[in-house]
Amino acid sequence: MDRRSFIKKAGLATGAAAAATLAAPAIAQSMPELKWRMASSFPKSLDTIYGGAEVFTKYVSEATDGRFSIQPFPGGELFPALQVADKVQDGTVEMGHTASYYYWGKDPTFGFGTSVPFGLNCRLQNAWWFAGGGKEALNEFYADYNIVGIAAGNTGGQMGGWFRTEIKSLADMNGVKMRIGGFGGLIISKVGVVPQQIAGGEIYPALEKGTVDAAEWVGPYDDQKLGFNKVAPYYMYPGWWEGGSMLHVFVGKDKWEALPRSYQAIVEAAGAYSNDWMMAKYDVLNPKALRELVAGGAQLRPFPQDVMEACFQAAADTYAELTASNASFKKVYESMAAVRGEGYLWWQLSENGFDSFMMGQQRKKLL
Amino acid sequence: MDRRSFIKKAGLATGAAAAATLAAPAIAQSMPELKWRMASSFPKSLDTIYGGAEVFTKYVSEATDGRFSIQPFPGGELFPALQVADKVQDGTVEMGHTASYYYWGKDPTFGFGTSVPFGLNCRLQNAWWFAGGGKEALNEFYADYNIVGIAAGNTGGQMGGWFRTEIKSLADMNGVKMRIGGFGGLIISKVGVVPQQIAGGEIYPALEKGTVDAAEWVGPYDDQKLGFNKVAPYYMYPGWWEGGSMLHVFVGKDKWEALPRSYQAIVEAAGAYSNDWMMAKYDVLNPKALRELVAGGAQLRPFPQDVMEACFQAAADTYAELTASNASFKKVYESMAAVRGEGYLWWQLSENGFDSFMMGQQRKKLL
Repeated sequence: MDRRSFIKKAGLATGAAAAATLAAPAIAQSMPELKWRMASSFPKSLDTIYGGAEVFTKYVSEATDGRFSIQPFPGGELFPALQVADKVQDGTVEMGHTASYYYWGKDPTFGFGTSVPFGLNCRLQNAWWFAGGGKEALNEFYADYNIVGIAAGNTGGQMGGWFRTEIKSLADMNGVKMRIGGFGGLIISKVGVVPQQIAGGEIYPALEKGTVDAAEWVGPYDDQKLGFNKVAPYYMYPGWWEGGSMLHVFVGKDKWEALPRSYQAIVEAAGAYSNDWMMAKYDVLNPKALRELVAGGAQLRPFPQDVMEACFQAAADTYAELTASNASFKKVYESMAAVRGEGYLWWQLSENGFDSFMMGQQRKKLL
Repeated sequence: MDRRSFIKKAGLATGAAAAATLAAPAIAQSMPELKWRMASSFPKSLDTIYGGAEVFTKYVSEATDGRFSIQPFPGGELFPALQVADKVQDGTVEMGHTASYYYWGKDPTFGFGTSVPFGLNCRLQNAWWFAGGGKEALNEFYADYNIVGIAAGNTGGQMGGWFRTEIKSLADMNGVKMRIGGFGGLIISKVGVVPQQIAGGEIYPALEKGTVDAAEWVGPYDDQKLGFNKVAPYYMYPGWWEGGSMLHVFVGKDKWEALPRSYQAIVEAAGAYSNDWMMAKYDVLNPKALRELVAGGAQLRPFPQDVMEACFQAAADTYAELTASNASFKKVYESMAAVRGEGYLWWQLSENGFDSFMMGQQRKKLL
């Protein structure tokens, strides 16, 4: 009996179909059907940040033919938006999409995953994360919270916010009541600003009534939706407390370790896609919003040099205190600072040389 | 007979195992076993650019449990390094990892996938690609060559190259024999430079003997390996012909369309991972190389403003000619230029404000 007729008689399919049948149990094992929930810290109205979660989950689903399905939930839908880390930690949800610096109150080391005052721009945050030890340093820290962090988005350099009166020198900062949270709020308080915590939807009335004198949010595209230019015309820059804010997918560490390596690889790569997509989206959306804001009365003003220098010094002093008292902070800070110092050495040549010339041509309307 | 005992009697496994068996043929169909070859245009010695192909293929393999296996080949191993597009087009290999601008001689529209003189920096190239219509505009063009392009790496802003004598003004450019290829070579020839095509390994002896007066390669990390600082000390910047050079994975369009959507998603996301990883790697490696080059005698010099402006004008004139004569070029140029003009409007605020301050602090040794 030749081999072909034996196979036929044994009732086995031939060729590709047979191979598929034999390989199937192994594939099914490495591609379990999972239905996970991802809690975002952001409302749907922040469509670019929230969109990062949608892009991420779409890629994971497509890559697995729907077998690894992750449903994103807007901030606040499952639980308060700023509890994402806690709810990933305790297993209420398998995943979150959030800014690590929201959890800065637990330990200031959480700040580095997003951005810290006078830290890194978007590209150097990526450099640190993907090739400079950032991913490893922060995940060692996150492990204590049962969290694995995956890079998944960036807002770029944020604006310094909206001020009812112009800031012309450091003295003008004294006593300004400003809506600004977290680490940035701590640093800016050291130059006399009184930081306030106000939810997004309540900023406009507070600025209008003068309950606060200033408020920072994100950048032109997101700020425009809230209409701040009508009540606080001075739009200051740069937002030195957020030089390039990275978003994370947080995964429960126990859940992460139980994933097959194939799903881990898919999640990491989908995070990178979301990382590129979100920054790209902001860079395409911000300029139009900026032009419209200026047409609508926004007055663009750089923070005066003495403000920048005083805030830098306040940040440096704070880093010195925290590195002395907090071993995790010290380890992660030193890892970040090494990339920052080196990065801004190199940045002065071709990157800045090219950009400076191109900005000059833009101002001459030659682009 | 209740349902449970019927299933048992029928010899069917229950629960998860049954589901796996039933689902298996569908999974196997959507996860075919593929062994592809990817020809890189780069030698292994350019470990960061070539590394982009390795990172990409590793992710695809891991994501598919080795079912979609792509073997990368260094430039020249299968066929000449600059024939990657042709060999993807004719199906000799399924994939390539290359710079689209190498194929500029076929049609200058190929230039935009990597970078064009006075085009986009790395981040704006990403903005254009992922959210500004670049991916769609270029893939419409690539389709005529049976190619699908996936973003997969960036070198960042390249240096302007090594000069045996210092360039102090536009007049000094006249008659300089310079190793510079492609589109940049065409533009720089319009200000009197005589462009030369020389393979990487032959640049050093040509510079040493004075067969050429200048040569551009990539940036500090890659340039250092070739030792140019010993024979041509003036290291000029910026490399205005490569403000942020993107690498592509090229896939045969027929092969791409035959892939299941799951594999397409995996390839796109692995490309994004490679895109982030390569830029990060360069940003971490370049500063150290730069310091060592300077310690080894490199003299850093910005191109004089009159050189920059004359070259910008030469590029603008060339774009005007090409948009008048080449419909594909016009379409893609206009798509790129829209993102460039808008991008450099926005760049002047927080991005440049933050970076300028941080560079100042770096020079004061405060970072």
